[in-house]
Amino acid sequence: MRPTACLIIIGNEILSGRTQDKNLSWLAAQLNEIGVGLSECRVIPDVEQVIVDTLNACRANFTYVFTTGGIGPTHDDITTAAVAKAFGLPVIRHAQALKALQAHYASQDLNEARLKMADVPEGATLISNPVSAAPGYSVENVYVMAGVPRIMQAMFDGLKSQLKGGAKVHSRTLSAYITEGVIAGALTQVQQHYPDIEIGSYPFMREGRLGTSLVARGSDVARLDKAARAIEDMLTSFDVECFTEQAA
Amino acid sequence: MRPTACLIIIGNEILSGRTQDKNLSWLAAQLNEIGVGLSECRVIPDVEQVIVDTLNACRANFTYVFTTGGIGPTHDDITTAAVAKAFGLPVIRHAQALKALQAHYASQDLNEARLKMADVPEGATLISNPVSAAPGYSVENVYVMAGVPRIMQAMFDGLKSQLKGGAKVHSRTLSAYITEGVIAGALTQVQQHYPDIEIGSYPFMREGRLGTSLVARGSDVARLDKAARAIEDMLTSFDVECFTEQAA
Repeated sequence: MRPTACLIIIGNEILSGRTQDKNLSWLAAQLNEIGVGLSECRVIPDVEQVIVDTLNACRANFTYVFTTGGIGPTHDDITTAAVAKAFGLPVIRHAQALKALQAHYASQDLNEARLKMADVPEGATLISNPVSAAPGYSVENVYVMAGVPRIMQAMFDGLKSQLKGGAKVHSRTLSAYITEGVIAGALTQVQQHYPDIEIGSYPFMREGRLGTSLVARGSDVARLDKAARAIEDMLTSFDVECFTEQAA
Repeated sequence: MRPTACLIIIGNEILSGRTQDKNLSWLAAQLNEIGVGLSECRVIPDVEQVIVDTLNACRANFTYVFTTGGIGPTHDDITTAAVAKAFGLPVIRHAQALKALQAHYASQDLNEARLKMADVPEGATLISNPVSAAPGYSVENVYVMAGVPRIMQAMFDGLKSQLKGGAKVHSRTLSAYITEGVIAGALTQVQQHYPDIEIGSYPFMREGRLGTSLVARGSDVARLDKAARAIEDMLTSFDVECFTEQAA
């Protein structure tokens, strides 16, 4: 079985529409690189019981669970308390995390609020933060990361070599200025010939012209290329020019 | 109780990282305008059982559930089958939806794939699609909309007057070039004085300078303005200039 992942985005600022999330698409592409499929994402508010319930539902259902957000120094950063509660663990001040903060901040700047960022559930493994020192951490299959994209990305870069991936899923994208409805029947036939290849159909509009991008995804490159050729043949049978695009 | 909402984004293209979702932030702002809080969002794949289970979990827990994606003409558009299964309803061809498609497409273009877009769960109420004719629909508290942002927005514009909102949540944003860790203790005190106002703290970096935006949210404007003044006083007590921003 290919390993699965769930991303839990914790933050009122995403749910209020104030902040546009950028972590989902970045993490999805990164996970795919190492052969892990992002199977679900949940965006939840800064409410402890919601975080606890979501964590417990997701960590039982996916190989890996990643969280972003809520591990800063302010009162609304409650992710660590919630993770500890979900696992039934006490929160402790982690010696190595404390050292990292002491190396980063002048001693007069390392106030109680910042010291909170050295607190983790007991037994957690730290995730290094080369950007701003305050670490993330993992407990069992749950990886707790910062919400700021630059910091989250640096954390993930450091931890990804520890994740066990499966076969990487490759993709081929073919596009044409033809609408979905015209090709849908023929496309269904291609999909039926290639049940091991996942084919998605996505309409687009560019410079006032309607078109469709067809994305084929699979781990067997030879089969994928065969399916892509079948899609190309199908598109050209409608007398339209077919062009390729890079896609995740 | 303020009405709650959950958005279910259905689509492999979001989970693969290929497409950046734009519906969450738009819908969040719109719902807030009518006094409905977006409480959760789930991004799930084009897998029937996952859609069924997610729908059934969410429609029991939130006042309103909105879905985007998966109602087009191609084989990977399986939302309607899943919604019908979640409610235990048969799928029927809706006479009014059929008329809308017949008015939009020349008869030779209205093939079997496009006719599928007139199929809805029995008893569903149509949601008009002024952009491309194929309607969305609602069943009980579940509103099924297109994934293409322009179409989704047009659908929501038409249906929002039917939704019952509560008190609108207003917000005030105050920013300063000071880091979260410095003000966290003082900010906690402001939050404790205003338990009815939700205060969020969001770090940012602009032109190489670190800063923090503080967002206060609440439905009582007088209390909100009082809390905003307390935040401003707190910030200026650190000898930094405080500036206001518009925010959702």
